[in-house]
Amino acid sequence: MPLASWRSPLARALHRNRALVYARYLQLATVRADQRPANRTIVFRGFLDDSNQLQFVTDARNAKADQIDRCPWGEACWYFPKTREQFRLSGALCLVKADHTDSALQKARQALWQSLSDTARTQFAWAYPGKPQMNKDGFNVSTPDATTPLPHFCLLLLDPQEVDHLELRGDPQNRWLHQHDGSSWSVQAINP
Amino acid sequence: MPLASWRSPLARALHRNRALVYARYLQLATVRADQRPANRTIVFRGFLDDSNQLQFVTDARNAKADQIDRCPWGEACWYFPKTREQFRLSGALCLVKADHTDSALQKARQALWQSLSDTARTQFAWAYPGKPQMNKDGFNVSTPDATTPLPHFCLLLLDPQEVDHLELRGDPQNRWLHQHDGSSWSVQAINP
Repeated sequence: MPLASWRSPLARALHRNRALVYARYLQLATVRADQRPANRTIVFRGFLDDSNQLQFVTDARNAKADQIDRCPWGEACWYFPKTREQFRLSGALCLVKADHTDSALQKARQALWQSLSDTARTQFAWAYPGKPQMNKDGFNVSTPDATTPLPHFCLLLLDPQEVDHLELRGDPQNRWLHQHDGSSWSVQAINP
Repeated sequence: MPLASWRSPLARALHRNRALVYARYLQLATVRADQRPANRTIVFRGFLDDSNQLQFVTDARNAKADQIDRCPWGEACWYFPKTREQFRLSGALCLVKADHTDSALQKARQALWQSLSDTARTQFAWAYPGKPQMNKDGFNVSTPDATTPLPHFCLLLLDPQEVDHLELRGDPQNRWLHQHDGSSWSVQAINP
């Protein structure tokens, strides 16, 4: 698959902000069952193979897994502090759980699990996220096996269909809208 | 109005991250007319008087103004890089436009306009945001009057009803859920 038109500016932003570990953090908005928005910080884990799909990890016990089941669409907002630019990536979300039938995606899920640190993997063995905390017992857990993902470990994919790129530097600011028409990407300058 | 239970940890985060100008940037999620989420970076402009409502500025010509008219609810996600903590603030949104009838809110809108820099005020005189950019003529504008807000300048208020505070530091991480029951705030520790 050819690289989308927004891949090159995004790669440049990642490179220029690489000194900041949190330049790989972005905010993902989804919609709750009550039609209200939800929003949280997630960590970018690279692209799926040679696709334009962004990879993240999540726990099937989290509220966002249910939200994605109901409304498989999200908008990620990614702000790069050093270069002062923002990417808004709107697209379809795909949650690859333990029972997902696509073998290539299961392989990607497993590879992502293996690429995590022990610390990151251990968090998937913690007590049920978001539930009232009775004590700290549910966090005194052994490190999970590095080869086989825990059952509630999910690969989350965002397949952008529209990307709004704003550069705050410049007078005036620069802004581009990248749009996918089903087969190819187009880009146009829009007013900031 | 008494300070909400989340005001003290938020004030502490703002203080400890004050060296980073972008620690005052957060991401606001809303819902579009098509029921899909939208998400963008906005700048925190302090609290409204002695309330627990967060102030922002926006342009009535932006897509989010329409979204808020349809669904006046948002979730702000605020990540503080230095202290590695996140606040998710979910609550009602109120857009104070030029024709808003509440005189106290109009006064707050005017005060916020006056507090902006000339550069920030000038952006409200720019060409229609989000429209295709024909040329740069619409940005070669004179600095607006500092006392009277331009008609499409809006004060945006977020009145949180639930605040999810996560501290990534600590082993395990710490997480608290602050909830408003209509008259007062309660807080409980929840699993990270």
